Amino acid sequence: MSALTTDLGHTTVDLDRERRQGIAEVIYGAGKTATEIADIAIALLDANSGPVVATRVADRATDRILGDVFAAARIHGDFHAASNTIVWRRRAEELGRITIVTAGTTDGRVAAEAESVSDALGIRVDRINDVGVAGIHRLLAHEGALRSARLVIVVAGMEGALASVVGGLVAVPVIAVPTSTGYGSAFEGVTALLAMLSSCAAGVTVVGIDNGFGAAMAAARLVLARSTA
Amino acid sequence: MSALTTDLGHTTVDLDRERRQGIAEVIYGAGKTATEIADIAIALLDANSGPVVATRVADRATDRILGDVFAAARIHGDFHAASNTIVWRRRAEELGRITIVTAGTTDGRVAAEAESVSDALGIRVDRINDVGVAGIHRLLAHEGALRSARLVIVVAGMEGALASVVGGLVAVPVIAVPTSTGYGSAFEGVTALLAMLSSCAAGVTVVGIDNGFGAAMAAARLVLARSTA
Amino acid sequence: MSALTTDLGHTTVDLDRERRQGIAEVIYGAGKTATEIADIAIALLDANSGPVVATRVADRATDRILGDVFAAARIHGDFHAASNTIVWRRRAEELGRITIVTAGTTDGRVAAEAESVSDALGIRVDRINDVGVAGIHRLLAHEGALRSARLVIVVAGMEGALASVVGGLVAVPVIAVPTSTGYGSAFEGVTALLAMLSSCAAGVTVVGIDNGFGAAMAAARLVLARSTA
Amino acid sequence: MSALTTDLGHTTVDLDRERRQGIAEVIYGAGKTATEIADIAIALLDANSGPVVATRVADRATDRILGDVFAAARIHGDFHAASNTIVWRRRAEELGRITIVTAGTTDGRVAAEAESVSDALGIRVDRINDVGVAGIHRLLAHEGALRSARLVIVVAGMEGALASVVGGLVAVPVIAVPTSTGYGSAFEGVTALLAMLSSCAAGVTVVGIDNGFGAAMAAARLVLARSTA
Amino acid sequence: MSALTTDLGHTTVDLDRERRQGIAEVIYGAGKTATEIADIAIALLDANSGPVVATRVADRATDRILGDVFAAARIHGDFHAASNTIVWRRRAEELGRITIVTAGTTDGRVAAEAESVSDALGIRVDRINDVGVAGIHRLLAHEGALRSARLVIVVAGMEGALASVVGGLVAVPVIAVPTSTGYGSAFEGVTALLAMLSSCAAGVTVVGIDNGFGAAMAAARLVLARSTA
Amino acid sequence: MSALTTDLGHTTVDLDRERRQGIAEVIYGAGKTATEIADIAIALLDANSGPVVATRVADRATDRILGDVFAAARIHGDFHAASNTIVWRRRAEELGRITIVTAGTTDGRVAAEAESVSDALGIRVDRINDVGVAGIHRLLAHEGALRSARLVIVVAGMEGALASVVGGLVAVPVIAVPTSTGYGSAFEGVTALLAMLSSCAAGVTVVGIDNGFGAAMAAARLVLARSTA
Amino acid sequence: MSALTTDLGHTTVDLDRERRQGIAEVIYGAGKTATEIADIAIALLDANSGPVVATRVADRATDRILGDVFAAARIHGDFHAASNTIVWRRRAEELGRITIVTAGTTDGRVAAEAESVSDALGIRVDRINDVGVAGIHRLLAHEGALRSARLVIVVAGMEGALASVVGGLVAVPVIAVPTSTGYGSAFEGVTALLAMLSSCAAGVTVVGIDNGFGAAMAAARLVLARSTA
Amino acid sequence: MSALTTDLGHTTVDLDRERRQGIAEVIYGAGKTATEIADIAIALLDANSGPVVATRVADRATDRILGDVFAAARIHGDFHAASNTIVWRRRAEELGRITIVTAGTTDGRVAAEAESVSDALGIRVDRINDVGVAGIHRLLAHEGALRSARLVIVVAGMEGALASVVGGLVAVPVIAVPTSTGYGSAFEGVTALLAMLSSCAAGVTVVGIDNGFGAAMAAARLVLARSTA
Repeated sequence: MSALTTDLGHTTVDLDRERRQGIAEVIYGAGKTATEIADIAIALLDANSGPVVATRVADRATDRILGDVFAAARIHGDFHAASNTIVWRRRAEELGRITIVTAGTTDGRVAAEAESVSDALGIRVDRINDVGVAGIHRLLAHEGALRSARLVIVVAGMEGALASVVGGLVAVPVIAVPTSTGYGSAFEGVTALLAMLSSCAAGVTVVGIDNGFGAAMAAARLVLARSTA
Repeated sequence: MSALTTDLGHTTVDLDRERRQGIAEVIYGAGKTATEIADIAIALLDANSGPVVATRVADRATDRILGDVFAAARIHGDFHAASNTIVWRRRAEELGRITIVTAGTTDGRVAAEAESVSDALGIRVDRINDVGVAGIHRLLAHEGALRSARLVIVVAGMEGALASVVGGLVAVPVIAVPTSTGYGSAFEGVTALLAMLSSCAAGVTVVGIDNGFGAAMAAARLVLARSTA
Repeated sequence: MSALTTDLGHTTVDLDRERRQGIAEVIYGAGKTATEIADIAIALLDANSGPVVATRVADRATDRILGDVFAAARIHGDFHAASNTIVWRRRAEELGRITIVTAGTTDGRVAAEAESVSDALGIRVDRINDVGVAGIHRLLAHEGALRSARLVIVVAGMEGALASVVGGLVAVPVIAVPTSTGYGSAFEGVTALLAMLSSCAAGVTVVGIDNGFGAAMAAARLVLARSTA
Repeated sequence: MSALTTDLGHTTVDLDRERRQGIAEVIYGAGKTATEIADIAIALLDANSGPVVATRVADRATDRILGDVFAAARIHGDFHAASNTIVWRRRAEELGRITIVTAGTTDGRVAAEAESVSDALGIRVDRINDVGVAGIHRLLAHEGALRSARLVIVVAGMEGALASVVGGLVAVPVIAVPTSTGYGSAFEGVTALLAMLSSCAAGVTVVGIDNGFGAAMAAARLVLARSTA
Repeated sequence: MSALTTDLGHTTVDLDRERRQGIAEVIYGAGKTATEIADIAIALLDANSGPVVATRVADRATDRILGDVFAAARIHGDFHAASNTIVWRRRAEELGRITIVTAGTTDGRVAAEAESVSDALGIRVDRINDVGVAGIHRLLAHEGALRSARLVIVVAGMEGALASVVGGLVAVPVIAVPTSTGYGSAFEGVTALLAMLSSCAAGVTVVGIDNGFGAAMAAARLVLARSTA
Repeated sequence: MSALTTDLGHTTVDLDRERRQGIAEVIYGAGKTATEIADIAIALLDANSGPVVATRVADRATDRILGDVFAAARIHGDFHAASNTIVWRRRAEELGRITIVTAGTTDGRVAAEAESVSDALGIRVDRINDVGVAGIHRLLAHEGALRSARLVIVVAGMEGALASVVGGLVAVPVIAVPTSTGYGSAFEGVTALLAMLSSCAAGVTVVGIDNGFGAAMAAARLVLARSTA
Repeated sequence: MSALTTDLGHTTVDLDRERRQGIAEVIYGAGKTATEIADIAIALLDANSGPVVATRVADRATDRILGDVFAAARIHGDFHAASNTIVWRRRAEELGRITIVTAGTTDGRVAAEAESVSDALGIRVDRINDVGVAGIHRLLAHEGALRSARLVIVVAGMEGALASVVGGLVAVPVIAVPTSTGYGSAFEGVTALLAMLSSCAAGVTVVGIDNGFGAAMAAARLVLARSTA
Repeated sequence: MSALTTDLGHTTVDLDRERRQGIAEVIYGAGKTATEIADIAIALLDANSGPVVATRVADRATDRILGDVFAAARIHGDFHAASNTIVWRRRAEELGRITIVTAGTTDGRVAAEAESVSDALGIRVDRINDVGVAGIHRLLAHEGALRSARLVIVVAGMEGALASVVGGLVAVPVIAVPTSTGYGSAFEGVTALLAMLSSCAAGVTVVGIDNGFGAAMAAARLVLARSTA
């Protein structure tokens, strides 16, 4: 099994995923030490040729991670502070283009995670921010841009209604990301999650709460499939 | 206590509510026999001068109720089949006017309950039907009518997003009624309920699931307060 | 769309809301930096003529926000410590008057948010505090005051029973605010929320948990509609 | 173990409970056949000297049960249709007296179960019906009767607020029974259950949803303990 | 608004959706009478040129619906008994091809709904049935077919693990449909829903419980976007 | 209303409760400042003659509270560190005697609250600790003591089974207190709460999670009613 | 893949499971027609040599299933009415022996399913019935039998406390099966499920609600592993 | 009762458990002071001859616990930092051997608790780490090792699918431990818990969330029963 995985003691890294799915395993930084993240990143950079990404990295750990990896592998990495993501070997060519729409300012961190991961993989992102449905004309002002989008990720907390309205405006795939934004009755994102799953706009699909990373990966599945078709 | 209540054996009727709140106690028909409903209706018609209403009356019981009450009290009653409501002494004068908006066909029964009860109390109703947010232009076609409304009741199931969009369009009070309409993830109205409570449109208030009656009574509190101001 | 919104980089401000709904967008301070709040406040003060309000502002940020805005716009702002609200250009004329009733001492912070926002918008507030139903005579001592109220906001945690009792005493609109006060079985406000939605007093409406702001806005919809009728 | 239990094939009957707890095992009729209920009743009547009770007995099964037991044991049994309870050897002497209060007509079945079981055990019941808190004066009209009660069982659905108000009026033990009565947001009794557990009236205790039997047994524990003190 | 919608009394039909989104509004048959369904179908067939579909149609209603529509519009319709779907003007040309995978026999009805709707819209379906993860080799036997798929819909109840395993095997978009299949702890599909939303395979998206229709529409968004690119 | 309540600005104190229910209002210390607690305590000590109690008092606040009250009122108060309770004018005479049983060490804090409050009111407490059902013989070793108890409070977390076993052993009232003790699946006391409400031992009643105070007050209702009978 | 599975059109049968896990796939009868069950049974009987079992078979279907299979394959099958299970080629040799304990009469159907499946596989069952913890002495009367058991399955509804008590009495494996028995607060087995997962008796494991089949299969894993060790 | 328990003031220690169940009571360190843990450990070491274990011990307390016990009892103890477990008198002989499988790096802490406890009791552990189902080939690479295991503990968070796949691969007992690992929709382990309870692999049993200790004890019940057979 040496060709497919490597055992770092603390982690068994799936080295084969880039070959199998076109994208190397993304490092989930939460709960990992700086050293662990650096070790995994080096192993992935060594065994693959494409981008390598770490999400949910603690602010204070980034200098050490980037320093370590830089020293070891001579590969430059970038830290995206808006989403606590690190990217090595960002894909410079544009494989596709998507649009990310947010309902409010506080949904920005989740949208930024979706954007960082997408961009790293060669998928460029157009952003339409702060167009929650309480002022529907704000959204409709972007109707043209939305209708020309190839795929839309909708990021919204509270009641998550934006996903339904966008889903009714466009014909292309819509991926909804519920966020944990909102007063008590938003129940840390559960309300938005249920609302998006029950959307009256047919064909909207949903990922987990605050999972901007998951939405980016779903978009990547679609864009990569399309680009190789 | 004889002036305030009467004991019918099966029920203690609150005869004083019309004086105290302007509207006689409304009979909740579910789980009551035709005889019990008729008894209560007669007691209320006797002790009060305004409209008397029974909701959630079983289809098969209405003939008997109306026959009994008619024979006993010489007062005509009407059965509204769309909402299983009976109304005696509908208030003919118009005390106010409200608008009821529904998201889909299957929300119609709840909207009809709200309409029957409102109308009985002298509050006339304008209806805007089937304008769910998946086709936002359907709703916007009614923007003028909505902006001139004095109070809006929004009836919606699934993700209940209509309440947020309407709440953002109008400046007047918006009362949201979640309905139990929708696929599995609508969870019998819980999804719409939570979504409406978390609405990003400030100042939307909510009543219980499928509670068209409650929305009508909330509207009546407002219209009656206004009409006596 | 330049007339309707302005893009501050971090936020897209809805400048049109005052025209559309009579009240400028209220700034939700939680999760925003002092600079962001100040930027939005200045933009709203510039583009509108009425009051501007920020809720859920962190204590430590207020000096900086008020200093910045004062320097930039020569407009005095007040910090309400009881509810962490900032108000600029409080409306001095009285557009209406409402009553806020609380069940216990710990519901005070939510009631204070409702009061600060209402007062900023020109709606004066009478308070009846600490009249939970376990000592029903405390509430009944205020029966006269309650009956003369034009609208009642009931703020209660634990089992939220106060909303039902008040709803039965008065004929005017009752808006219930569940709070997250109470022992373990209060489940952070869920118990009070469900209880208020199931109130046996017909026509009580409900807003989200701890959402004093939402109750004030619902009251404003009603008072403003009434005052312009 | 022959003295303590008997094995009827379908059921192992606890014959010792009357000695241990003062009351024979009560037969839970739901899901048992008429023959099984009759068998158990005969075994209990044989081995004990006090009352024997079966709850939740299907209407159609009662004739057969009572016929069988009568033929076998020459002991008369009574069927209480309001609560689907059968009682053999009702205790004629009065061991104590309690009060049962209901919020609405539809709580009657649960209250009837509590009453039938109590009465069978020698505990006489005073009833105060239909005094839900939406008309608080209806309840206060009974304040004198409530204050002289020795123990109060409160039966209420919807938001269950009656338990808190009664708990604040009386000094004696209050046992609250949530019922599954109410519109959608009552969630089959969960709302009333949570509300009663979070009561602001200190020292109210609660039994399970619709469990009138449980409330009666809790009352019996108290009355019997008191009567033997 | 005459060009965009038509009012049938019982329903306001969105006639514009085909132009806006490429697919006419799909008729949700549950809770509608045969006449209502037929009316809507005729209106849609009249105003559009592409396929028209009705889902969740009651068995006993299909003859009457198809007879009515046939008589009125001379357009042949087909009833798919496996999913209670009616299709008029099935698109004969193949716009794309997808794969539907099921975990067990009882997931078949939901998969059939996804298949009927897809097929009507010109999307051909390959099926891989009964490959739940308890016998992982059954699934791996289809690894080649899965890897050559362009989009995979995974339909599974119980613990929904199939979505994660398939998501790890293929690089293309995976849409997961939780079904209400399973013993008590499957909680009518909630368990599978949560599991799919928490999938360790990055980029899997989810639709509501038993919502085969929603999965087909999500696939259509993707295939149509691709085919027009 | 001056005789019944007093308004301290921050709190409206119910001065009448001792007369009405035999016990002065108990001060809930959580979320109140030392000054507020001291103010309320003084008001209650002034207006009543019996014990005064404050629960959930922060450790660091007790010196100041007791100092203030002592200076103002010359009444000695005691701090019970095991339960963060302060007691003034503990009732020295014994009105009754109850037994508190705990399942494990970590249930001790809740049991201590029940004990402090009971003791303050003149109800002496016997403790049986650490007799969880996993070692049933530990409990049975106390069978004699349990059988001679006049009332039993059972305090247990995890699965709360101790309430059922004790309920089956004794004939007297059993009040169950679920605690938030236990691994993840104990869900902060919800599991024990539901288990106690579903107890197979008839007549067990329940108070809210971690509500030792509530259990003590329920016991006081019973003991005081008994002692005055 | 022809050796491992067979495709019956309606079902893909896993023929390899007996070889892989020692027990052929068990047919889950719910939702399958008599013909489908018979087809699968014949396929399994053909391809394997050991017992074949179908659970949750509808009463009315059994004659037809057994007739069909008998005619086709000359193999006798037995219907167990207590659990709606059919067994073909029951293993006559005793591979092991386990004990099943139930709390109440209504848990019998789930216990019967566990027993039928176990017995079919060669695992003999001792039953201890109706020993719920409300009469702990009933259980302790069987202490000797329990201590000599090799594995205990505990079947209980309501609060499920029996699992904890048995878990504390015996040293051998204990598998707990929550049942959906009980009043409203038992929540269809959820209460017992949570209680068993939170058991204070260390090392008790749990299967899903009403899943007697699952418990039998867990026991079989253990007994077969042991018997081949 | 002196032979069976000892009362340390803060705790009643069950000294008899080693005799009754083969393993002394394990000390649950959470919420206990260093002194309390040391006291209990000394009591258990004195009264028993086998291993003594404390779980969930705070890092900062271990030096003091081990120092105290060492000084008092001359018995060496080891602290396992990966799981915050202390072990005294680890059983050196091998009574059995089990395999623990984890889905991801962050499940390691729970697996370490299971391993420390098992090892202390004489059960040696083989570990297979980081083989989540998103890369099913990683797991299948260990198929041989899994098939030769005598018992498998599966530790997984997120959707917990690993339990089903392993359950289908092996014939021996599988104990599943859900962990609280994962994004928002994992709901602190609830998703994995429900998924494991609904596993399509028959005969998988489950312990509570993050309860590595419980899994080890369940394994010990099985291994010890087997070793004494």
